[in-house]
Amino acid sequence: MDLDVVFIGTAGSAPTARRGLPATLIRRGGERLLIDCGEGTQRQLIRSVGLVDLDDVFITHFHADHVLGLPGMLKTFGLQGRERPLNVYGPPGLRQLFKVLGPLIGKPGFDIRVTELESGEDLERDGYVIAAFSVKHRVPGFGYALIEDDRPGRFDEARARELGVEPGPDFGRLQRGEKVETAQGTVAPEQVLGPDRLGRKLVFSGDTAPCDMVRGEAEGADLLVHEATFVHDDLARARETGHSTARQAGMLAADARVGLLALTHLSTRYLVRDIRDEARAEFADTVVPRDFDRVEVPFPERGDPVLVRGDDD
Amino acid sequence: MDLDVVFIGTAGSAPTARRGLPATLIRRGGERLLIDCGEGTQRQLIRSVGLVDLDDVFITHFHADHVLGLPGMLKTFGLQGRERPLNVYGPPGLRQLFKVLGPLIGKPGFDIRVTELESGEDLERDGYVIAAFSVKHRVPGFGYALIEDDRPGRFDEARARELGVEPGPDFGRLQRGEKVETAQGTVAPEQVLGPDRLGRKLVFSGDTAPCDMVRGEAEGADLLVHEATFVHDDLARARETGHSTARQAGMLAADARVGLLALTHLSTRYLVRDIRDEARAEFADTVVPRDFDRVEVPFPERGDPVLVRGDDD
Repeated sequence: MDLDVVFIGTAGSAPTARRGLPATLIRRGGERLLIDCGEGTQRQLIRSVGLVDLDDVFITHFHADHVLGLPGMLKTFGLQGRERPLNVYGPPGLRQLFKVLGPLIGKPGFDIRVTELESGEDLERDGYVIAAFSVKHRVPGFGYALIEDDRPGRFDEARARELGVEPGPDFGRLQRGEKVETAQGTVAPEQVLGPDRLGRKLVFSGDTAPCDMVRGEAEGADLLVHEATFVHDDLARARETGHSTARQAGMLAADARVGLLALTHLSTRYLVRDIRDEARAEFADTVVPRDFDRVEVPFPERGDPVLVRGDDD
Repeated sequence: MDLDVVFIGTAGSAPTARRGLPATLIRRGGERLLIDCGEGTQRQLIRSVGLVDLDDVFITHFHADHVLGLPGMLKTFGLQGRERPLNVYGPPGLRQLFKVLGPLIGKPGFDIRVTELESGEDLERDGYVIAAFSVKHRVPGFGYALIEDDRPGRFDEARARELGVEPGPDFGRLQRGEKVETAQGTVAPEQVLGPDRLGRKLVFSGDTAPCDMVRGEAEGADLLVHEATFVHDDLARARETGHSTARQAGMLAADARVGLLALTHLSTRYLVRDIRDEARAEFADTVVPRDFDRVEVPFPERGDPVLVRGDDD
C-alpha cells in the first residue's frame, strides 16, 4: 500500500513566488486526503499531481491562509462535473465557515458533507484512522494523525508446511487469523505468524505552539509534519502568535522519536537553510520540503521515509 | 508617461498550470490599477511585478473566478502594514459582495472604500478618466475604459522665436495655453501650438458576448483587451453562456479599428494558436498574452502598442 505526502503549499500567512499557501496532500493507495486549502490550492494541485478527485478535506483551523482556496476548488470540481460527495472535516466552527463561503461556492452540483469533529475523535477508515486532536494556537485548531491499523505478522511458510498445511486456501485462512485443520491436527494462526507489524503513522501539527498533544500523537510517528513559522531568535513573537520555532519543532521531533521531521508553514522572514539548520541541531532527520516535494513513507521493514524532490515549473 | 498593461491571469473559469484566474494590471506612471482579482492574484503579482501597492481595483462582475482573490490579497496588504486606503469599484452588487467577504477579510488595518458605479459613469483622474460601461453577460457586468485627456499640440519653437517670444518662462506660458506679450505684440497659443494630440485609450471588455457597448467604447482604442472564451465552432455555447468567440472578438476589433487586440479569459478546451489564428483571420494585429506578458502602449506618435513577453518561472 503506497503512502506519501505531497507538499502542495508550504508558505504561512502570505504566499511567495516559490511557496503557495498551506495545503498538504496525503495519498494512500487510491485515496486522496487534503489537509488545509489555502488560496491557490486548486492551481497548485494542477501544477503538480493534477486536480485529483479528493475524497476528504481536513481543515486545521479557520485562519484565512488555510481556507481561502476552498470555494474556488469546489467550484472547479463542479465545473468538471464531479458528482460524488466530498467530505470536509474540521474543528467546531466549520459549519459557520461554510455558511460564510456558501454564496461564493454556489451550487457545485455535488454534495459537500461538512462534519465538525471533536478533539480526540477518530474517523475509522478502511485500514487506518484519522485522529483529530486539539493544538495550541490563537484560535481553536486541530492537528491530524493518520494511523494505520497494525498488520498481521509475517507468515512463516516453511513452518506451516512442517505442520502439514497445504499451500492454497489454508495459507490465506491462517494469514487472516483463522484456524485450519490438517492431517496432523489443528493449526492456529499464532503458530505460523510472527508478531503483529505496526502500521504507519503520519502526524500533522497544523498551526501551533509546541504542545503536549502534538508530542503525544507524534510518539514514534514515521513522519511528523510540523510548522516552523519562526526561528528561535524570534521566540517571543512565536509565543505571542501561537506558533513554533524551528528549534522547538526539532526538539519535539527528537523527544517523540519520529522517523522524519518535515517543516512547513514557512515565513518569508528567514532563509530556508537557517530554519533547517536550527531544527537539525536538535533532530538530524529534518527536511524542509519545497512546494511539490513529497515524502514517501514505506512500511518500516522496507525502509525509512524519504524526501523526493518535485518538479517546480 | 509610461503606460502598460500586465496580464496577471489569463484563464477563464478554472486555472491551468500556466494560466491563473482573471486579473489585469494597468501601470500608468506611478499608478497601479487592477481589473478583477481571481483566486491566486496576490501570488501572480508576487511572481511577476511584485505585490505592488495598488491604488484601485475594478471588478467587472461577481462570478467567483473574478473575485475570489480579493480577501487573501487584502489580508496580505494588511500583514504588510498598508495604511493608505484602497478603492474598489464595481457594478451594483459590490457592497453585497463585500458583505459576504467581510468575515474572510477581517480587519485589514486600512480603509477599503467600496464604490458601486453606474454604467456610463466616468471616474475623473489626474490626466485620464476611467469609464465604466455595461456589457452583455449572464449577470450584470461592466467593461472599463481608460481614456487619457488630450494633450496640447506640439510647440513650434522656431515660430515662437520668429514672433519675438524669448526662450524662458514665456515658452511655458504658451504651452499651458496662455497668451504672452512681446515687443512685436500679443502672441496667442494657437499661433505656436499644433493641433491637440489624442491621449491613449485602453478598453477592457470583461466577460461579455460581443456587444455594441464594447464596440462603441473600443472605437479607435490603442489597445482592446477582449475575452475569447470560445472558438467559433462553439458559437452556440458562447451565446448560451454570454461569452465571445475569438472570431467575434477579431471582427469587433476590426470594426472598431483598434491598434492592438489582446485576447484573454482563455478556456482549456482549445489550443492557443487556434484562438489566435481564428481572431487574426478577422484582425491581424491580435495577440494572445501569456500570464506575465505585458503590452506597452506608447503615445501614438512614438510607436504602436507592442506585446512584451514576461518571464514565467
